[in-house]
Amino acid sequence: MKLQLALDTMTLDEAIILAKSVDKYVDILEIGTPLMIREGVRAIKRFKNEFPEKEVLADIKIMDGGLLESEMAFEQGADYTVVLGVADNATITGCINAARNWNRKIVVDLLCVNNLEEKVVELETLGVDVIAVHTGSDQQELGRTPLEDLKRIKDVTKNSIVAVAGGINSKTIEEYVALNPDIVIVGSAICNSEDPVKEAEIIKSKMR
Amino acid sequence: MKLQLALDTMTLDEAIILAKSVDKYVDILEIGTPLMIREGVRAIKRFKNEFPEKEVLADIKIMDGGLLESEMAFEQGADYTVVLGVADNATITGCINAARNWNRKIVVDLLCVNNLEEKVVELETLGVDVIAVHTGSDQQELGRTPLEDLKRIKDVTKNSIVAVAGGINSKTIEEYVALNPDIVIVGSAICNSEDPVKEAEIIKSKMR
Repeated sequence: MKLQLALDTMTLDEAIILAKSVDKYVDILEIGTPLMIREGVRAIKRFKNEFPEKEVLADIKIMDGGLLESEMAFEQGADYTVVLGVADNATITGCINAARNWNRKIVVDLLCVNNLEEKVVELETLGVDVIAVHTGSDQQELGRTPLEDLKRIKDVTKNSIVAVAGGINSKTIEEYVALNPDIVIVGSAICNSEDPVKEAEIIKSKMR
Repeated sequence: MKLQLALDTMTLDEAIILAKSVDKYVDILEIGTPLMIREGVRAIKRFKNEFPEKEVLADIKIMDGGLLESEMAFEQGADYTVVLGVADNATITGCINAARNWNRKIVVDLLCVNNLEEKVVELETLGVDVIAVHTGSDQQELGRTPLEDLKRIKDVTKNSIVAVAGGINSKTIEEYVALNPDIVIVGSAICNSEDPVKEAEIIKSKMR
């Protein structure tokens, strides 16, 4: 089980410093969407230079231009990039083709996908690598969590890597670990903690 | 009727040069999603500095963090930014709140929204400024156009500004103009033309 750290609402330099402080607990460093919007693709190259032994994920939430936008991320060294599950299948296929060309991985983010079970069958037929259950930050404000969606997804996935994201922290990590996802994504719980190292250490210690 | 030029698959310097060559025909300069991913928000400030009298749109296709991501674009000077119609209403509301705070405009991109009529009613109740009918580049490859969707939208919108995008060029512009959208978005027809100035001139001459 891998721990993915989502770095969202900070500058690139702040993100690098934070990542260095917790990197022994983290498997995948995610350059979150706000950080990608702020900095552009050079953030990816910077992360790969600073952390050559870590996997780096560029969360660009692709909605169109699947081949082109995926290649923009892979060219800079991203190990993973992200397409939205609500995108057209033509876009998702473009992303998968880019991943095959570059020997990298595509994550499908299921944010706002309602027909989860049906979509998972479709995505596995298309050949995606990672399926991510995700309750967005705006949805978390309304009290929602990704726990139920993770249960639904775990029941139907056959050969995908399953990730989960959405407000997970050291107090709730065990509920998620019990459902055996392959990747747990944590952002604000670590980044906004008074003690990010301690929070990362506790979360990682509760994972398998 | 405004002409919006979408600048997508080029560097920032190339985009500035192209925009300067055609700017007398163009009302809104769009920093397209691939250009935003490549350069980050500094592209917005650069455009506002180079074209202080033009409106600038930052197409960041927001899917979560509506308030935060909109404000990132508005802080750099964007007149418009873009949220996806498939996003949660909480996200769209966050974007609208940011637009009210900054006295700017939010565009909802209807890419991959199927229940168009129902969604338009919902969006007008939320209070969006611009509703954009959009056939994505990956969908255009499959032969689709936004013409039928524009008809459907024009039948149901009450007080929104209506925009249309998706492969429109000097040969097809008249079909769209006949449906009286408020904003026509053109990208590759101008950007990939052998003579971008001529193409922009013809398109603008056929608009009302």
